[in-house]
Amino acid sequence: MKKSMKPEQLTCPLPITEHDAIQLSHGAGGKMMNELISKLFVWAFDNPALSKQDDQAVVEIGDQKLSFTTDSFVVDPIFFPGGDIGDLAINGTINDICMNGARPFCLSAGLIIEEGFPLKDLERIVLSMKRAADKAGVTIVTGDTKVVNKGNADKIFINTAGIGLIEHNHDISSCNLKPGDVVIISGTVADHGIAVMSQREGLSFDTPIQSDTVALNTLVEAIVKAAGGDVHAMRDPTRGGLAATLNEFARASEVGIKIREDLIPVKPAVTGACEILGLDPLYVANEGKLVAVVAKQKADSVLKAMQGHELGRDAVVIGEIDSDRPGMVSMMTRIGGQRIVDMPVGEQLPRIC
Amino acid sequence: MKKSMKPEQLTCPLPITEHDAIQLSHGAGGKMMNELISKLFVWAFDNPALSKQDDQAVVEIGDQKLSFTTDSFVVDPIFFPGGDIGDLAINGTINDICMNGARPFCLSAGLIIEEGFPLKDLERIVLSMKRAADKAGVTIVTGDTKVVNKGNADKIFINTAGIGLIEHNHDISSCNLKPGDVVIISGTVADHGIAVMSQREGLSFDTPIQSDTVALNTLVEAIVKAAGGDVHAMRDPTRGGLAATLNEFARASEVGIKIREDLIPVKPAVTGACEILGLDPLYVANEGKLVAVVAKQKADSVLKAMQGHELGRDAVVIGEIDSDRPGMVSMMTRIGGQRIVDMPVGEQLPRIC
Repeated sequence: MKKSMKPEQLTCPLPITEHDAIQLSHGAGGKMMNELISKLFVWAFDNPALSKQDDQAVVEIGDQKLSFTTDSFVVDPIFFPGGDIGDLAINGTINDICMNGARPFCLSAGLIIEEGFPLKDLERIVLSMKRAADKAGVTIVTGDTKVVNKGNADKIFINTAGIGLIEHNHDISSCNLKPGDVVIISGTVADHGIAVMSQREGLSFDTPIQSDTVALNTLVEAIVKAAGGDVHAMRDPTRGGLAATLNEFARASEVGIKIREDLIPVKPAVTGACEILGLDPLYVANEGKLVAVVAKQKADSVLKAMQGHELGRDAVVIGEIDSDRPGMVSMMTRIGGQRIVDMPVGEQLPRIC
Repeated sequence: MKKSMKPEQLTCPLPITEHDAIQLSHGAGGKMMNELISKLFVWAFDNPALSKQDDQAVVEIGDQKLSFTTDSFVVDPIFFPGGDIGDLAINGTINDICMNGARPFCLSAGLIIEEGFPLKDLERIVLSMKRAADKAGVTIVTGDTKVVNKGNADKIFINTAGIGLIEHNHDISSCNLKPGDVVIISGTVADHGIAVMSQREGLSFDTPIQSDTVALNTLVEAIVKAAGGDVHAMRDPTRGGLAATLNEFARASEVGIKIREDLIPVKPAVTGACEILGLDPLYVANEGKLVAVVAKQKADSVLKAMQGHELGRDAVVIGEIDSDRPGMVSMMTRIGGQRIVDMPVGEQLPRIC
């Protein structure tokens, strides 16, 4: 890889991309973002925790194993059906903390607010953060507030970072998928992205589409309890959707992933909205779903545990891992064809989270 | 206090301030910011770690005591004499982590980038972050990148959060000042704020004024080694400057603080720039200085330890703690008068860090 390029050189192995300026796609969860992260951040900051490119770092402090993560939220609009930037910022970081089986412990909150932002809206967002944190049993222990001049930011951006405690010895990581494993999704896909997008575009539907934003830590607990070390990887498919998560998994573990289109749960209203908006639900962000990759012999018990949890009632097996085409995700379509599910390149939906 | 207003009510004890929209002053490190934090954040998130209102939270995970903090950086301009938003973001959070005597361990970095931001500038900033982290012996283990449309942010904002390990049993906190203690500053004040402000205003001086941005963790180590539990509080006086830090100390510990103007070190060029810009150096941000409040009997040995460290060569005693006027900071002026050093109310310098 780039290991021969020593960070000590202090000049980056450019070109990072073909562009000389940041594009929206560099933040979109797809190929261009991964390229930027690998070629610049992972190269420069060079350490094993970051290089794994999981959504959280595992750090050992003393005799304690911690899960540490950060996420900035820039969603537009800040209030959307089913949630707002406040609960999204809490739930999103809790989900990143716990996808390796860690128990979320505490959060930080860093707010960047545009001058002139209504105090009533700030109150609403802060109380929404509080409710989300309480519900997940996590405290917000430290924070920071910056205000920038009007026009220098769009309303409010929220960064949350968080610490979780890893109390097991399983290796739950995107690098740990094994041929024969089964891929489970915890419920319907694309709800969050479509809820935000509909609000932004002023679309309304007979059946309102709500964001699925929620903290998944108790569902994760149930999965780890049922599977122990036989759950090999978990991730919440946010930016870039299910397609990006599966591609990251396939590459990190150098395995092939085969899924079946007819098994992937999508709400009819979301399917309809995707058609109107010209979006593929596989690439649309979720904020309350997880993909779990589990050893075959534990698939049934994990599925049962998930279906018995309120956040996993619609959990289904959608595919499996093989060794045929390492790094590739392929899908059997509804009509029986086979197609490659590629990593998204660019930007379907800017500012979705 | 507001303890009777239960968070469960989920409506805030408004009015938070006399304003119904966020002002620049709400992020300025002064009275208005403190009011917003106390009446909204501390009230809503209600927990002992946050309520202390130190720059870092102490959290106990298992048998480990950790220092956890977050800070967002929105400085304008992003490149300034002596540093840039990258090393500022690393040093600033390292300093917040270690002011309770913790050993900084790892950092997260969350970047919000405006579409169109030059990749060359991003590379420069990331490498500056790397150098600062390496110098302080801290790794950046996890990160997040968001891109917003052109005009929705001003170039780049960086959030860093970080974890430190507390390996001592001393209570080093703004709540721990005691009458008789001595106040020490580690060097000249107002360098950072004036460096940024001069760059912004296009001022140039015969002697260039450089930001003092630097990680203070090794200086903190030297102080704790010299004083043990006799160092009662430390803080890096950033937004709001020395005046804000001393006022926060006086209020948190309900003690009086007396300082002497003629003892406070200010570079002549900085004094000159302050006169031109109409600023009081006591209220201008520092990014590489700390205030230590130390038991009298240890003042000499702490001072010696600081002066023997490259980041504390200009360390001096500037005042002492008494019980005369709890919560108040007063200063004997150069001409022998006495004046109150009040908490800054509003905004001297927006986007200084």
